[in-house]
Amino acid sequence: MGTITMNTPNTLKRVLMGPGPSDVDPRVLEALSRPTIGHLDPAFLEVLNEVRELLQYTFQTGNEMTFAVSGTGSAGMETCVVNLIEPGDSMLVCINGVFGKRMTDVAERCGADTSTVEIDWGKAFEPGQIADALKKKPAKVVGIVHAETSTGVCQPLEEISKIVHDSGALLLVDAVTSLGGMNVDVDGLKIDACYSGTQKCLSCPPGLAPVTFNDAALNVIENRKTKVRSWYLDVSMIRKYWGSERLYHHTAPINMNYALLEALKMVREEGLEQRWARHLANHKTLKAGLSAVGIEYVPEAGFELPMLNAVSIPAGVDDAAVRKQLLDEFNIEIGGGLGAFKGKAWRIGLMGSASTLSNVMLFLAALEKCLADQGVKFERGASIAAATEQAGAK
Amino acid sequence: MGTITMNTPNTLKRVLMGPGPSDVDPRVLEALSRPTIGHLDPAFLEVLNEVRELLQYTFQTGNEMTFAVSGTGSAGMETCVVNLIEPGDSMLVCINGVFGKRMTDVAERCGADTSTVEIDWGKAFEPGQIADALKKKPAKVVGIVHAETSTGVCQPLEEISKIVHDSGALLLVDAVTSLGGMNVDVDGLKIDACYSGTQKCLSCPPGLAPVTFNDAALNVIENRKTKVRSWYLDVSMIRKYWGSERLYHHTAPINMNYALLEALKMVREEGLEQRWARHLANHKTLKAGLSAVGIEYVPEAGFELPMLNAVSIPAGVDDAAVRKQLLDEFNIEIGGGLGAFKGKAWRIGLMGSASTLSNVMLFLAALEKCLADQGVKFERGASIAAATEQAGAK
Repeated sequence: MGTITMNTPNTLKRVLMGPGPSDVDPRVLEALSRPTIGHLDPAFLEVLNEVRELLQYTFQTGNEMTFAVSGTGSAGMETCVVNLIEPGDSMLVCINGVFGKRMTDVAERCGADTSTVEIDWGKAFEPGQIADALKKKPAKVVGIVHAETSTGVCQPLEEISKIVHDSGALLLVDAVTSLGGMNVDVDGLKIDACYSGTQKCLSCPPGLAPVTFNDAALNVIENRKTKVRSWYLDVSMIRKYWGSERLYHHTAPINMNYALLEALKMVREEGLEQRWARHLANHKTLKAGLSAVGIEYVPEAGFELPMLNAVSIPAGVDDAAVRKQLLDEFNIEIGGGLGAFKGKAWRIGLMGSASTLSNVMLFLAALEKCLADQGVKFERGASIAAATEQAGAK
Repeated sequence: MGTITMNTPNTLKRVLMGPGPSDVDPRVLEALSRPTIGHLDPAFLEVLNEVRELLQYTFQTGNEMTFAVSGTGSAGMETCVVNLIEPGDSMLVCINGVFGKRMTDVAERCGADTSTVEIDWGKAFEPGQIADALKKKPAKVVGIVHAETSTGVCQPLEEISKIVHDSGALLLVDAVTSLGGMNVDVDGLKIDACYSGTQKCLSCPPGLAPVTFNDAALNVIENRKTKVRSWYLDVSMIRKYWGSERLYHHTAPINMNYALLEALKMVREEGLEQRWARHLANHKTLKAGLSAVGIEYVPEAGFELPMLNAVSIPAGVDDAAVRKQLLDEFNIEIGGGLGAFKGKAWRIGLMGSASTLSNVMLFLAALEKCLADQGVKFERGASIAAATEQAGAK
């Protein structure tokens, strides 16, 4: 084999408690490995129909144009922006973390006349802030992140949706981290376009981006004066493949769609409300345990995401050393801080299949060991005691 | 489960002899289903290193910037164009089928000042045609398709590469269908940027697009005056993740990279030359068989692709009925004609794992049955007799 080295561990198994990907159920991995068939095979077109139907259920929408983009979550973001925006169109982007910043960058590359409203990382927007920004400069599209994966902040959307629509704008929502782990009520909130990823609370491997467009968004797309800047992500062509025409556009990622279908079936079998309740309960248990050893959340109380727990790293603790120890000694992956939070925050995911009481307990116990090794003073066992009490109190 | 239907056949297995996806080896499917790990996990970064190393082997290049785009083959096309082209840059695209046309569309969306040289579908370009076009209007980038999947034509590149470089342009080559099935000598041919797909002669499921950029191409990218129009496909950011910085850009499709690595290991184990020889031998056997029952190739003699056999549908034969019968009675998928060839051509793939003598024989026997059912007059068994002779004569 010459000088080529091929040392890949064959079956390395981690406990994925970072910001995604999350643990993938064996059922989904089995589906992923089914024999590949053609993208125009009637049997595969039926898979696409079922994926759409179950994505509609998960997004809580009747939108016909609900499908999986052939790329990861960021491709979903780009799909929404590039199709809704024509060069010179005004777009307001709300920034309180990495993904709002990313949406601004994407919008500018699409030729948008972009304005931003920016607040401190770790905070959620108040509706008045969006209203003020729109009064200063109206927009065709307002983009906002529902679950900011970089800060762990949950953004309430009800009042903001009313403000955005009263101003005549379309509402574009990033639900990459929230979909399947908390309420993402696309129709109820009148969200015009929404995108997500497969590797967060849907617990499918990364590689597809569920998106949905309502009639108002499709109307904008149908009435564009210029071609969409991306051929690959052009919804007017993709809808001819996902829709009844079945016109070839690009070769869909066949096996990834098998996996997404299986993951969505598991969402449907559990039921949305039960799934959200599970995510919330495990979050509360983790929070109780972390509080007991003095670890605080980044977001203000009441705005914490249940599936992505962003916490401040205790003073004097070596960020990289703890994450390495968690990985090497316990096979647990958690996330470090992004951007402004690099070295200052840990991001502990409890997403999809990884949101279990076992994972909470394992993580707390492992973290206590790491903190003790770092010389942190705390009452040993306190996190487990507090978590046990919280879990029993459900 | 309410009204949601979930009828997906669990383990439908086809013989994939269309224009891709091709049959995927069980080894690759097994790799695909390994436990998902994080995109910044040291073990996964090692997977990326191995993918790059084996892609370099397969592309026959020393290019450091050789990686897998997180999308299908068309995303690879868009990645190359959107990174090399700034608005107003001149690009010459050579069109002799669907994929040249597609490249033109992509280039225009990227803001290129596009010119085209167009010849009849089914023909290959003569070097003089490219030289003439460049004399009329010089270009920054010349895009050409090596293996036109819509017509089955193989485009010789040696002289064209010299002409393109003498004019001062960069050479961009579509090797979606050729890579791994015939000689794609990136360094030897001085190809500046090249893209492929995983689901053709690499026999991996669709979902990734191998690409490679040489120093001249990277130099153009580094000296851009404007941001790349696509955030998702921006090579200047992606290289910080695939390179030594390991800076998060987007979440890589983890399991698809496992599968690609395994597929590339199989390419390496077989050896490039042996793999090309296998594709050629099976093509010759198929061609002998088809000729014996009067079926002619679309491309001129000497320009047929070994992995994608585009043949004229005999007069009076019902295209859709034959393809449906092949699928329903024999589980064999072949491709219909695209664009100008819709209803006029069949596209019979012998790609990667699907390029076997067994598949050739099975297909010929099945086709004889279908043709007989269509009332076509031919000497029964003639295709098998001719194929047997050809296969024995190797």
